[in-house]
Amino acid sequence: MDTRIERDSMGELEVPASALYGAQTQRAINNFPVSHTPMPTAFVQAVARIKLAAARANQQLGLLDEARANAIQKAAQAVIDGEHDEQFPIDVFQTGSGTSTNMNVNEVVATLASREGVEVTPNDHVNMGQSSNDVIPTAIHVSAAIAVSGSLRPALVHLQDCIDRRADELKDVVKTGRTHLMDAMPLRMDQELGAWSSQLGQAIERFDSAMQRLCRLAQGGTAVGTGINAPEGFAEQMAKELSDQTGLNFAPNDSFFASLSSQDAAVELSGQLKGLACVIMKIANDLRWMNSGPLAGLGEIELEALQPGSSIMPGKVNPVIPESAAQASAQVIGLDAAITVAGQSGNFQLNVMLPLVATNLLTSITLMSNTARLLADRAIATFKVRENNLQEPLARNPILVTALNSVIGYNAAAAVAKKAYQAGRPIIDVAEEETDLDRQTLERLLDPKVLTQGGVPE
Amino acid sequence: MDTRIERDSMGELEVPASALYGAQTQRAINNFPVSHTPMPTAFVQAVARIKLAAARANQQLGLLDEARANAIQKAAQAVIDGEHDEQFPIDVFQTGSGTSTNMNVNEVVATLASREGVEVTPNDHVNMGQSSNDVIPTAIHVSAAIAVSGSLRPALVHLQDCIDRRADELKDVVKTGRTHLMDAMPLRMDQELGAWSSQLGQAIERFDSAMQRLCRLAQGGTAVGTGINAPEGFAEQMAKELSDQTGLNFAPNDSFFASLSSQDAAVELSGQLKGLACVIMKIANDLRWMNSGPLAGLGEIELEALQPGSSIMPGKVNPVIPESAAQASAQVIGLDAAITVAGQSGNFQLNVMLPLVATNLLTSITLMSNTARLLADRAIATFKVRENNLQEPLARNPILVTALNSVIGYNAAAAVAKKAYQAGRPIIDVAEEETDLDRQTLERLLDPKVLTQGGVPE
Amino acid sequence: MDTRIERDSMGELEVPASALYGAQTQRAINNFPVSHTPMPTAFVQAVARIKLAAARANQQLGLLDEARANAIQKAAQAVIDGEHDEQFPIDVFQTGSGTSTNMNVNEVVATLASREGVEVTPNDHVNMGQSSNDVIPTAIHVSAAIAVSGSLRPALVHLQDCIDRRADELKDVVKTGRTHLMDAMPLRMDQELGAWSSQLGQAIERFDSAMQRLCRLAQGGTAVGTGINAPEGFAEQMAKELSDQTGLNFAPNDSFFASLSSQDAAVELSGQLKGLACVIMKIANDLRWMNSGPLAGLGEIELEALQPGSSIMPGKVNPVIPESAAQASAQVIGLDAAITVAGQSGNFQLNVMLPLVATNLLTSITLMSNTARLLADRAIATFKVRENNLQEPLARNPILVTALNSVIGYNAAAAVAKKAYQAGRPIIDVAEEETDLDRQTLERLLDPKVLTQGGVPE
Amino acid sequence: MDTRIERDSMGELEVPASALYGAQTQRAINNFPVSHTPMPTAFVQAVARIKLAAARANQQLGLLDEARANAIQKAAQAVIDGEHDEQFPIDVFQTGSGTSTNMNVNEVVATLASREGVEVTPNDHVNMGQSSNDVIPTAIHVSAAIAVSGSLRPALVHLQDCIDRRADELKDVVKTGRTHLMDAMPLRMDQELGAWSSQLGQAIERFDSAMQRLCRLAQGGTAVGTGINAPEGFAEQMAKELSDQTGLNFAPNDSFFASLSSQDAAVELSGQLKGLACVIMKIANDLRWMNSGPLAGLGEIELEALQPGSSIMPGKVNPVIPESAAQASAQVIGLDAAITVAGQSGNFQLNVMLPLVATNLLTSITLMSNTARLLADRAIATFKVRENNLQEPLARNPILVTALNSVIGYNAAAAVAKKAYQAGRPIIDVAEEETDLDRQTLERLLDPKVLTQGGVPE
Repeated sequence: MDTRIERDSMGELEVPASALYGAQTQRAINNFPVSHTPMPTAFVQAVARIKLAAARANQQLGLLDEARANAIQKAAQAVIDGEHDEQFPIDVFQTGSGTSTNMNVNEVVATLASREGVEVTPNDHVNMGQSSNDVIPTAIHVSAAIAVSGSLRPALVHLQDCIDRRADELKDVVKTGRTHLMDAMPLRMDQELGAWSSQLGQAIERFDSAMQRLCRLAQGGTAVGTGINAPEGFAEQMAKELSDQTGLNFAPNDSFFASLSSQDAAVELSGQLKGLACVIMKIANDLRWMNSGPLAGLGEIELEALQPGSSIMPGKVNPVIPESAAQASAQVIGLDAAITVAGQSGNFQLNVMLPLVATNLLTSITLMSNTARLLADRAIATFKVRENNLQEPLARNPILVTALNSVIGYNAAAAVAKKAYQAGRPIIDVAEEETDLDRQTLERLLDPKVLTQGGVPE
Repeated sequence: MDTRIERDSMGELEVPASALYGAQTQRAINNFPVSHTPMPTAFVQAVARIKLAAARANQQLGLLDEARANAIQKAAQAVIDGEHDEQFPIDVFQTGSGTSTNMNVNEVVATLASREGVEVTPNDHVNMGQSSNDVIPTAIHVSAAIAVSGSLRPALVHLQDCIDRRADELKDVVKTGRTHLMDAMPLRMDQELGAWSSQLGQAIERFDSAMQRLCRLAQGGTAVGTGINAPEGFAEQMAKELSDQTGLNFAPNDSFFASLSSQDAAVELSGQLKGLACVIMKIANDLRWMNSGPLAGLGEIELEALQPGSSIMPGKVNPVIPESAAQASAQVIGLDAAITVAGQSGNFQLNVMLPLVATNLLTSITLMSNTARLLADRAIATFKVRENNLQEPLARNPILVTALNSVIGYNAAAAVAKKAYQAGRPIIDVAEEETDLDRQTLERLLDPKVLTQGGVPE
Repeated sequence: MDTRIERDSMGELEVPASALYGAQTQRAINNFPVSHTPMPTAFVQAVARIKLAAARANQQLGLLDEARANAIQKAAQAVIDGEHDEQFPIDVFQTGSGTSTNMNVNEVVATLASREGVEVTPNDHVNMGQSSNDVIPTAIHVSAAIAVSGSLRPALVHLQDCIDRRADELKDVVKTGRTHLMDAMPLRMDQELGAWSSQLGQAIERFDSAMQRLCRLAQGGTAVGTGINAPEGFAEQMAKELSDQTGLNFAPNDSFFASLSSQDAAVELSGQLKGLACVIMKIANDLRWMNSGPLAGLGEIELEALQPGSSIMPGKVNPVIPESAAQASAQVIGLDAAITVAGQSGNFQLNVMLPLVATNLLTSITLMSNTARLLADRAIATFKVRENNLQEPLARNPILVTALNSVIGYNAAAAVAKKAYQAGRPIIDVAEEETDLDRQTLERLLDPKVLTQGGVPE
Repeated sequence: MDTRIERDSMGELEVPASALYGAQTQRAINNFPVSHTPMPTAFVQAVARIKLAAARANQQLGLLDEARANAIQKAAQAVIDGEHDEQFPIDVFQTGSGTSTNMNVNEVVATLASREGVEVTPNDHVNMGQSSNDVIPTAIHVSAAIAVSGSLRPALVHLQDCIDRRADELKDVVKTGRTHLMDAMPLRMDQELGAWSSQLGQAIERFDSAMQRLCRLAQGGTAVGTGINAPEGFAEQMAKELSDQTGLNFAPNDSFFASLSSQDAAVELSGQLKGLACVIMKIANDLRWMNSGPLAGLGEIELEALQPGSSIMPGKVNPVIPESAAQASAQVIGLDAAITVAGQSGNFQLNVMLPLVATNLLTSITLMSNTARLLADRAIATFKVRENNLQEPLARNPILVTALNSVIGYNAAAAVAKKAYQAGRPIIDVAEEETDLDRQTLERLLDPKVLTQGGVPE
């Protein structure tokens, strides 16, 4: 490989001739052969957004000349646009501050900007008024906020809409409810699906709440939180620039010291993603069990057949989308555990698990976003109901006797149910024998469809 | 032991003669010899609050006569007042719906109420309009909401106030900042403590947000969410009664089906408790390291001496309160992992890890409440600053050269710092030699106290 | 309350007049009002075992006179025998070294021993040759090793035996297998239960392996691992004494420095408990689903009815033992997460989350031991098989076509299965039409019972 | 893009013209756009190893002709050799059985084998005697066993060797011990490093134990564990072939039903990786704190300078390798949490989180292997000791008074220590004043170097 010599404050070293980056990036490439996984592109782009915003802010505050400011903006925009993704190869498991990635962006932007006919250096110009210690926490917030608002939230709304549409279609389908997996009082499918929709609606509320703290930025705190080397007004200007770029509502955090030394907003967001994973797991498991069988299972629905299910059992079709969704949920729960370790790892003025936090957060958001869309489009939207299977046990179910509680009391009702179970007979027949109620009254009181409407049967 | 015979729908069994509970409680005592830990008293009392509220609601809605309603209210109030705590011995690891605990309260309240001269039965009167499936999720929300608002939130405010007070006292103390544990730019102690305060402030915001969803109740959903056997208006009346009792703002959830089949609000609250645990861990670790030494450590502060630290090393004093706090935080993180498993464990119409969720949530709230108060009163409020130890490294610190970046550029500054490190000389002496800046200018630029104010040194 | 004045190296304070403990215990009671949960009795007894062993070892090594040694042994034995359980009220969330609990035992033993007519002091005599820093890690290993060998392992063997016995009874019961919850090839119930038995057998192997490292003790390392103040040969003698007391095979660890500064054997044991929890969760979930219905579920078995299942639905019976087991498993997973945090919390010469580790480990062992016995005796031993429900779908199952793969090839078999699914017809009828195989051959090839024996059908 | 038409049992679809795979792989590519991360190459290669072994076993057992067997072996070997890595693009978050990846390998191998002049089909020939349900669990065990034995274990031995070498070099360096982060009795650096070495030694023991269960294979169980469609002797022959290929000692598991329905060996291995992560975290944190400063920290060692540490603070050098190691450890802890969820996710005859388990296990092994080598070569091997900083507090440390316990008793010693702390005077001076011991005796008793040897000072 062709190389050239680059130097930084520690000396010289070889860099690929074609690389846009310089010595510090190369040192980090050499230092961290750990996972062979680079930082996520969405994160690198958020750092580039900060560089673009800083060039504008520094110019407006009189610290940077127009030519350099323009050159930096153009260069940063190219990175934001994904034109140089391969120039950011540093491993996730690097210095805990993410300094290597900040310098990687500083170096690439400086190289590109210098092609515009001005001398631009990574530290003095591209990084002006900044420190890795405020840039990286800011980029975590900015990249996650973009991903939540631009990807996750719309995907959740889409899933919720899809569920609501199916619920509306299925509002006449009555089925046996299950508590403890045992036959319970009946409900309608729109009620069952409505639970999922409600869960998703409240999950969205939680993300909206977390976004408020995610939109408070570290930028302006520089090295330790005091803002040394950042001009007055820089923090506010940066928040404004980043808001303008993204359409989000960023503001400086109330304590830069907190922003640098902790990752509480990331821990919160990850916790809410973990909560969403529990919701998705519930939906996926319900779908899998509803679809189970077709003969020796519950057989309530039939999910769309997407691929042959077995390399040995011909004709088998499996609930692959819910399985994918359940695994994605498990992974989000795991990545939250890692972020929780990171959230405990701040000492004094800096948390030093930032690249881990950045990466896991973006991975979890991606997993949940794509899963929500898949679950909507390839499972919820397309399953068919096997109504015969639902009808069969519905009217025989001894638990319907619950409707008689207010008429004959719990203990008498229990005696009727017990007899029906033991004899395997329809509840209505046993109730007719064992109570004073006539057939017509019982038919009215024990009508599953009516029972789904709640209230005290009279 | 003296016993009497009790019976329920499954038959007869022996119960201690003095017990206020009946057959179903006794069956559960026999069935679950697992942890030998009963459900938390705060949870049992929340169930009793529901019984009291239900008696009033059922009377108002015309289903329950005044005599029985009054008797049930009086009995429930006695349980709420802690007069019968020993009557609720059922193990946490019981039926997943918590039905045993609901029946335990139903039975004890029925026994007590029956002493008022009316016949009151557990299922038909005390449990009227209710099911364990809505009572237990409601009690989880009510007990946790009471504990958060009445105990955790005030404790966090107290800790934050205490930190703010100490920060104010320490606003003239300048120290060397640390990033990556390495000497960094200086900051003041009020800035350092301000980070903790800011973290706590945002933690409180998170609990306030979680409270909104915690205050939406399952009550009214009864057996599967349809509200079968609950009269019209019951859900709203129950929320009102419970709000009146507690001063909180309860309302029926938008989907009872969701309230019964999932535990999302509990998962959220537990996640926020986990986030708080990360905050407490950060504060505890900072305190422990600041206090380390006194000779071979950082020696920045001296925590109050509370007890001899060692059974073998005479005179040793250890940072026991921060250690207690760190362990409490670790436990909260663990209990959140258990609640996360529970949050995935709903199938169809019911989540069946409710007693676990109830108990772990209340334990975590207690741990964090008591820890916040201890940390405030026995660590933050009473530590002394060892100013000499702070001053010594402050002015020599080569990293102060950062203040020259805007004057001489990063690379030149790095060369100065490197030389100062290698020679072990004060940074100002080396800077005087290596730059064009005179001593007076350097004294101004490198004054640690001024550097804590941020901005671009000129 | 009557009090007396006690003093220690920090001064005087009031202690309940009746307390056997002294000043240091009282300070710790005052200092740690966190969880209001004392250290587990089994842990306190393990500390007392160390005191008894140390008195013998110190006497044999010539450091302690016979009178004091005898007095300490008698006193320690009383604690081991549970005669003074209420004398150990210090909170779990105390100093991270557990020094308070070590001193609590030192003080109580000294008080009791002094009643024998000799002067015995807590630090110089009861704690002779020891430090909390080796006593507490040793007590963690000793108490956990006793609980694993005396309680958990026999319970797991009992559960495995019970499963094996049921499997043997059920070896003629053929049922439809399920993969992805979908109908798959048939198997016998003894094969299905055999999986659980095999899982438990390997879980026992894992505990046996963990026991090897659990039996290596910190005792002899004293304050930091060097063994300062412990006489030569003390470590070996202590291991021998503790082995004699317990019948276990203790030995000094190869590095006392590692024993004090880390909790790796506890992390390992907790990890294996977490693995066991996954096994128990699998068994509990299989049982719950097999028992589901009885009408709208799988209805394969009927678990013993142990208590009424619902406060509102008369006659309902739920799988309460598997639910209890699943919750216990969830808790063990959570406590492992807490122990994992603790396992990361050693700095330099001491891990300071020892009381948390001790308590959670013993809790998890208790939960799993009691759960294994309950699951064996109240679920596995007593369930009934509903054979009719198993038979019905067995022979119709289109997946049986798998048996024809080697005769007609996967693709042709898939076509047959697909047709059978779509028409809802028995697989044998379709296969007869679509292949060259005659009815007799097909009956032989598609016999579910024969298919459970594996091999290539010919 | 050029495409061709492929078909499977579900019909036709378009595949890239150049793809070696067929219809089922393409369906899976289309179905699972979730993480855009393919299954790990090491896992795909393990599946290919199974295909190679199966071709040999099937030929030997008389089911497969020599020409096809040879063609399949050649094709599988090319995959094992990494010649077709880009042909396996299916997402990790796919069907829970990993059937898609099994079919991907079946299809690619069939295509390559068919180029050898024989007709080879994916299901009937490449997959002969196998099912995804035994292939994928087998590949999890085989790929993890190869990675543990070939990569992780040697890396841990390397790290342990490196620590032992440094310990030997540093056996004359005495330093102040720290418990609770507070000054404690002295120890030598070889003792301190010896703790790390001992921890790693026992970690290796754990992996050796886990390997025993990892080497028991599912292969031979086929669809549900009965071994349907696998010839007699196939399981044993496959274990032998895979042992011959890898040099490991594989055998059939005692219950194929357990192998398919659970992932206990993976949960165990992941748990041990989590335990190792705790060890690495301890070492990394000790190194970071020893290196802290250089002025306002402990300043005990100086880690090799690998890269500039700050984009804003010139001259700053940070402990980047321990930070990378700590983050890798956090990630392993997180991935274990995900695997734990997966370990609970088996129902009846199949666990359906297999691709997640496979991927996370291999990721964790890679992270720990690379981290162990980095920590050895770029941190442990190269740090320098700053002896002056160690000496300064050593002899003054009041805790040395512990050595007088056996001479003057704990309480008298405590009084001496207290006075030395308060006056800030050397312990020896105060002891001379406050006890009857002469200077010479005290010099002998309080010599830090001697105290590191343990024993009762006389």
